[in-house]
Amino acid sequence: MRLQGKVALITGGGGTIGGAQARLFAQEGAAVAVADLFPEKARAVAQEIVARGGRAMALKLEVRSAAEWQAAMAATEQAFGPITILCNNAGANFRTSFDDHIEEMWRTILDTILTGSFLGIKAVVPAMRRAGGGVIVNLGSLASIRPGPGSPGYAAAKMGLVRLTCCAALAYAREHQARFLHELQELLRIPSVSTAPQHAADVARAAHWLAAHLEALGLRARVEAGSRHPLVLAEWMGAPGRPTVLCYGHFDVQPPDPVDLWRTPPFDPVVDGDVLYARGASDDKGQLFVHLKAVEAILRTAGRLPVNLKVLLEGEEEIGSPTLATYVPRRRRRLACDAALVSDGALFAPDLPTLVTGLRGLLYTEIEVRGAQRDLHSGQFGGAAPNAVGAAAQIVAALKDRRGRIRVPGFYRRVQDPTPAERDAWARLPFDEAAFLAALGTDVAPGEAGVPLLERLWVRPTLDVHGIAGGFTAEGMKTVIPARAVAKVSMRLVPDQDPGRIFRRFARFVQRQAPPGVRVEVRHLASTPPVVTSPDAPAARAAARALEETFGRPPVYVREGGSIPVVAAFVRALKVPAVLMGFGLPDDNLHAPNEKFALRNFARGIDATIRFFHHYGHG
Amino acid sequence: MRLQGKVALITGGGGTIGGAQARLFAQEGAAVAVADLFPEKARAVAQEIVARGGRAMALKLEVRSAAEWQAAMAATEQAFGPITILCNNAGANFRTSFDDHIEEMWRTILDTILTGSFLGIKAVVPAMRRAGGGVIVNLGSLASIRPGPGSPGYAAAKMGLVRLTCCAALAYAREHQARFLHELQELLRIPSVSTAPQHAADVARAAHWLAAHLEALGLRARVEAGSRHPLVLAEWMGAPGRPTVLCYGHFDVQPPDPVDLWRTPPFDPVVDGDVLYARGASDDKGQLFVHLKAVEAILRTAGRLPVNLKVLLEGEEEIGSPTLATYVPRRRRRLACDAALVSDGALFAPDLPTLVTGLRGLLYTEIEVRGAQRDLHSGQFGGAAPNAVGAAAQIVAALKDRRGRIRVPGFYRRVQDPTPAERDAWARLPFDEAAFLAALGTDVAPGEAGVPLLERLWVRPTLDVHGIAGGFTAEGMKTVIPARAVAKVSMRLVPDQDPGRIFRRFARFVQRQAPPGVRVEVRHLASTPPVVTSPDAPAARAAARALEETFGRPPVYVREGGSIPVVAAFVRALKVPAVLMGFGLPDDNLHAPNEKFALRNFARGIDATIRFFHHYGHG
Repeated sequence: MRLQGKVALITGGGGTIGGAQARLFAQEGAAVAVADLFPEKARAVAQEIVARGGRAMALKLEVRSAAEWQAAMAATEQAFGPITILCNNAGANFRTSFDDHIEEMWRTILDTILTGSFLGIKAVVPAMRRAGGGVIVNLGSLASIRPGPGSPGYAAAKMGLVRLTCCAALAYAREHQARFLHELQELLRIPSVSTAPQHAADVARAAHWLAAHLEALGLRARVEAGSRHPLVLAEWMGAPGRPTVLCYGHFDVQPPDPVDLWRTPPFDPVVDGDVLYARGASDDKGQLFVHLKAVEAILRTAGRLPVNLKVLLEGEEEIGSPTLATYVPRRRRRLACDAALVSDGALFAPDLPTLVTGLRGLLYTEIEVRGAQRDLHSGQFGGAAPNAVGAAAQIVAALKDRRGRIRVPGFYRRVQDPTPAERDAWARLPFDEAAFLAALGTDVAPGEAGVPLLERLWVRPTLDVHGIAGGFTAEGMKTVIPARAVAKVSMRLVPDQDPGRIFRRFARFVQRQAPPGVRVEVRHLASTPPVVTSPDAPAARAAARALEETFGRPPVYVREGGSIPVVAAFVRALKVPAVLMGFGLPDDNLHAPNEKFALRNFARGIDATIRFFHHYGHG
Repeated sequence: MRLQGKVALITGGGGTIGGAQARLFAQEGAAVAVADLFPEKARAVAQEIVARGGRAMALKLEVRSAAEWQAAMAATEQAFGPITILCNNAGANFRTSFDDHIEEMWRTILDTILTGSFLGIKAVVPAMRRAGGGVIVNLGSLASIRPGPGSPGYAAAKMGLVRLTCCAALAYAREHQARFLHELQELLRIPSVSTAPQHAADVARAAHWLAAHLEALGLRARVEAGSRHPLVLAEWMGAPGRPTVLCYGHFDVQPPDPVDLWRTPPFDPVVDGDVLYARGASDDKGQLFVHLKAVEAILRTAGRLPVNLKVLLEGEEEIGSPTLATYVPRRRRRLACDAALVSDGALFAPDLPTLVTGLRGLLYTEIEVRGAQRDLHSGQFGGAAPNAVGAAAQIVAALKDRRGRIRVPGFYRRVQDPTPAERDAWARLPFDEAAFLAALGTDVAPGEAGVPLLERLWVRPTLDVHGIAGGFTAEGMKTVIPARAVAKVSMRLVPDQDPGRIFRRFARFVQRQAPPGVRVEVRHLASTPPVVTSPDAPAARAAARALEETFGRPPVYVREGGSIPVVAAFVRALKVPAVLMGFGLPDDNLHAPNEKFALRNFARGIDATIRFFHHYGHG
């Protein structure tokens, strides 16, 4: 009895599909107004329902007439109370060849299917608002997805209905924007700092808040234990035959330190003009909330999603996703999908819609050098003792040549160059190299000689030493010959470099650089493969359409120099493309004081996500 | 009235020198027994003293007769109480040519001067012991230092008397060894850890303990404020025309940590067999105490030192001698001397007397590398950002070539090779290279290719990096591109390298190694010039004789790889040779738990120091 207490009006309720709907809704407890252009057909269905103990009434309704809509609404409301479910089911069709399809046919079909649905929606929305919500189901057809040579009006009208559905969701989102913001502020008030043990309960609280929120939207949600903080999983699988989208986000945040540099309290969200200030506003509570509110807007208007949906939210992103690294490969079947949607990034520039098509991989190593058994005095032993820090410096220095090329043999063997089209597109990006350098505080951006800067950042592999531990590094002087040193060295990898293969080459090369008197150990600490998504993947094309419709201009395709292990896991373990569609801005102060999120982009994100689901689902 | 209450017996007291002594002693308050082979001469002097209000008696004494000595002793003791001052002044001489010097003359002279003094000492020592101490003055003569062709017996006898004096001091030292040890233990109980602020009062306490001790020995001593802890200065300048020795030592100690690895409490000295365990036992309280006890043994037997003495003790050695670095050059006149004696080291091997003839210098620098304005994320910026730690590693690696040679242009220009004699001597040293390597825990002792190991440690300049600060060096992973790195690099310098000149060459070379995108600053933190002392310097020869007499074998001449700034200051500012005569052992656990000092070497040190003063003073 899933519809107990609901009041449904079903147009075309005397027909085959409409009648079936009416009977099913009544069976689930709804009071049903069976409306049809032919009242006797409606009456037969209503009588059958009442005979079986259900609640039903019959109505004559010409959906092309606004006046008849008003009458039908009034009669239904009088009998059962305000309508909370509208099924726009009434249709018309004339199967003819294109040449035989006369204007009269065309108008009848369009007026019935499209205009009728539009008038119905207009008629019921005020009542639904009064009732605090409702569901409008517009019946689509395969004819709109796979149009044939016959019935051109029908295909056009049904496709129009699909778009109308999308418009309704967008209108809903706009209407409820203020409430969405209030809800997001509630989530932002939970100080879910994953790295701070004293905030563990807050991270869990955020998880349960989100699970409850997803349940309220109509998804099946649950909280699962992670290695330190819980995961939230939810799904809506009511679109058989349609693609499945895995929405990923994280509800944990960075610590707010240094707190005294915040102009407003980090966990007391403040709106100033178009900007929302709070820790997590952009990274990533604000952006995961974009997905949730897009889902709400569609479900509250169309009653169903155009795609199947799996939601995976974690509370450990800011501590390196320790659970998901193994969870994703192990739960391949549970997470099976056709595309992963991740909104945890930024536009390349304000108002410039952006799709990230690739991430670099990461190979993080530790080189341990051991010389003498203990630290030695440089006066007593200098000249005859191995110096572990010196050896580490030699090894690190040997890793690159003077032109910035990495000297590990075979390192570049599988590196893919960008396409000429990518190079052209990147050259046109609004990228100010001088401003970039000024931000770094240097005159030159050193790196591989002869390679453009954006390519060096996005599609060239790199190597960096992060620090060398060992010996004496405090203030002042100590004349110690260090017995042990540990250098932290990582490489960013690009398609098609394989982290395992590169590690073996790297370790061999490092061993060969060891000077006499020291023993070297090379340890693999972590690796993430590089990721690339084709802009031609259907999900990527749907995202591009959604962004273009939302921003009024086609997206730019960029890469990112960083690595997102969980995205790499989706791509590698689930073998699906990742749609990386972020709505932050480059200056959103992620991980810094005064994190912010532009409300303009919060709204655009919801719009674009509604459209993405729509285009991806309707192919 | 410096001799109030003393009882002096003066042989030859009726003669010119003896009479003068008697009158002077009486004038200073002593009761004087004027003894002479000719009683009337003695009587005249005694009467004159009594007439002036002094206390005196005359005795007939044939110093060649033990029986007469006993009688003179008894008479004196009966009249005035036990003798506390004995002046062996009685002499005999016959100025003839060698040929005319008949046996009778020879025997008379030797019996009077040498045997007489010997018998006198034998006679008075028991009484002096009963009295708790005393002074024996044996009168020397220039004839023993600069013998001429005439008076061979006199020259021989007076020289023999000098040696007898030395023997008496050595005997005294042996006799009082147990007390010396007790006194040293008292000093060792003061936890004078100079680096620990909570022990500042203990360092001061040790200073005052030593000043009082030096005063009690008969030196003029005082405590002066240093930059963190006081200095102790003392002097005895009663040997005009004789050389002046500056004795240096330090009474501060290293912290005892890790305390739990000590088998006995670090500040509760324990003797186990021949070994004294305590923090500071060897470094340097035990060894500075060697000097003090040698001084005591001489002053308590001969009444005067054969050299002038300045004592400089500091409480800041273990924190880098911050006061003395400037104090020594500024107090050139006050510290003026002919040689510096430093016993703050070790024998090359057990039972192998060792003189250190050279110390390496030190040039300690800090290289600061700055890249971007702040640490950057290696994903976002890797490939286009300067890496300060990477640049520091490149610079450090560029400082030496593959054969271990330092690449700074002109670095080796003024390096002096050891002499063939030094090389031969070092090749014969009991140096076990395999054991050296085993102690280090390595298979090879890397360094300059083709240079013998001891030369690399002693007479070759070296360069070591002590640590590189910057970036991320903790456990785990952080993908930071460090904006700043500081490398600590020091060089050990050898004669005749000049620290200032080498620093300028080094800084220029480092600047040239800086890769694009970083700014480099090279800072001079400290420097100490190298030091070398010729084994032919008179003080070095005296030390060598002293060591040979004490150990029964000539010393080995070695170098030390380390640098002692205060020694360099003595050599540079005071322009004197440094006698580096240490009595520790290579395994004395300096700066480590269970520091120890062999009592055998404590005694040998005192003996050798007595002999050093003796030989150096008597030329």
